Amino acid sequence: MGNRKPLILVTNDDGYQAKGINSLMEAMKGLGEIIVFAPDTHQSGMSSAISTSLPLRARVYHREEGLTAYMCNGTPVDCVKLALNEFVPRKPDLLVSGINHGSNAGISVIYSGTMGAAIEGCIFEVPSIGFSLCDFSADADFSATASLARRLAARVIGTGLPRGVCLNVNVPAGEIKGVRMTTQTEGKWVNEYQPSQDGLGRDVFWMTGNFENWEADNVDSDEWALANGYAAVVPVKINMTAYDFLPELKKWEI
Amino acid sequence: MGNRKPLILVTNDDGYQAKGINSLMEAMKGLGEIIVFAPDTHQSGMSSAISTSLPLRARVYHREEGLTAYMCNGTPVDCVKLALNEFVPRKPDLLVSGINHGSNAGISVIYSGTMGAAIEGCIFEVPSIGFSLCDFSADADFSATASLARRLAARVIGTGLPRGVCLNVNVPAGEIKGVRMTTQTEGKWVNEYQPSQDGLGRDVFWMTGNFENWEADNVDSDEWALANGYAAVVPVKINMTAYDFLPELKKWEI
Repeated sequence: MGNRKPLILVTNDDGYQAKGINSLMEAMKGLGEIIVFAPDTHQSGMSSAISTSLPLRARVYHREEGLTAYMCNGTPVDCVKLALNEFVPRKPDLLVSGINHGSNAGISVIYSGTMGAAIEGCIFEVPSIGFSLCDFSADADFSATASLARRLAARVIGTGLPRGVCLNVNVPAGEIKGVRMTTQTEGKWVNEYQPSQDGLGRDVFWMTGNFENWEADNVDSDEWALANGYAAVVPVKINMTAYDFLPELKKWEI
Repeated sequence: MGNRKPLILVTNDDGYQAKGINSLMEAMKGLGEIIVFAPDTHQSGMSSAISTSLPLRARVYHREEGLTAYMCNGTPVDCVKLALNEFVPRKPDLLVSGINHGSNAGISVIYSGTMGAAIEGCIFEVPSIGFSLCDFSADADFSATASLARRLAARVIGTGLPRGVCLNVNVPAGEIKGVRMTTQTEGKWVNEYQPSQDGLGRDVFWMTGNFENWEADNVDSDEWALANGYAAVVPVKINMTAYDFLPELKKWEI
């Protein structure tokens, strides 16, 4: 890097107009040069989806000293890939994604576009962090999360993260008692559909649901931290191999 | 189960009309009662994306003795969730996804809609397997993969899989030398965009790219197996926690 300022890539899944990404962008100011590369529409729940048949387009929507902001018609992962392949002047020192409007704790890490973007940064060997606030409202108070994001960002710019590992940070609404480094809570969503009918009387199903926590008493899980007023930081691996099961699997005769 | 036949849920990401899902459906016949629940359009690269704002619709497009086939307007994960929440008569004994037209080895497991569906089955504690053939052509020869799918399906119906683990099976085009139980190859896609222009001369970017293998000599990796004529079976974990890094992370003062 020499004397160059750190380069920070900012993205999200709620789209460039969301309050969350603007809070995150503000929180990064002073830590380095900032490039925002965000979806031009809502891309919640897009996981690590990529657009294989859509021609991607990107354009600058804001520019100021030390900051250039682009919007793009792709998914969160498209945004990260296109930015890193075609738009950044050099490899960023940090990628931050969010601040998401709503939790991405527990199994939701799998569906999250916010974490899809962070995982993609990690694939590019850029230290990457996803931030989510457990408050869905468009006008949520992001100040405590932004403050934590700034402290974590400074730390990760300084020390990096292990190869193949990114961070999933979830923050409870309201006061934060502290920060806990935890595991991904085991559990799943249940009662996921609300049956309804369209205007012509045809059956449709709307996504809804509740998270069923299979380890509510595990003080080392992200859902426990959030339920007890703590921010939860989970280190997330991009290599999904179940190494524990591999020796057993190797015995199978197929 | 008592005397009931095993129940098998079949899905994919290439859509209900793809040759691959029809080969897989045929391969499952005789192993149990079959429910097909597949996207009505191409959903390649959709990862674990979910539709939070789209009203889902499903309808039967084929019925025969022991088999009912639905198409649905959602993503692969929407299909699995909707089938398991609203359409299956009981919890399936097996979910099979594919046979995908194209490889889902290495880091592609992250982007794959085929594996998104298998991972979703796993979240529901249904033993789940994704199958992919390393041949993109619409008219690929799926016979060897279908035969392997049938043997693996019979095995998994009999013995199950550990909780939280599903299988990612990739098969080379042409002759198969054998089956190797392996790890997810470390690496990433590079040169991912082809810059072009639309009809009005505006810049667009089309996804393309090559897989850069960071461990080409690792005989225990899925890409090595495929390059050497073997089918590769990788056990995939849905808990993404980087347990190895957690003790170090717990020392951070934030």
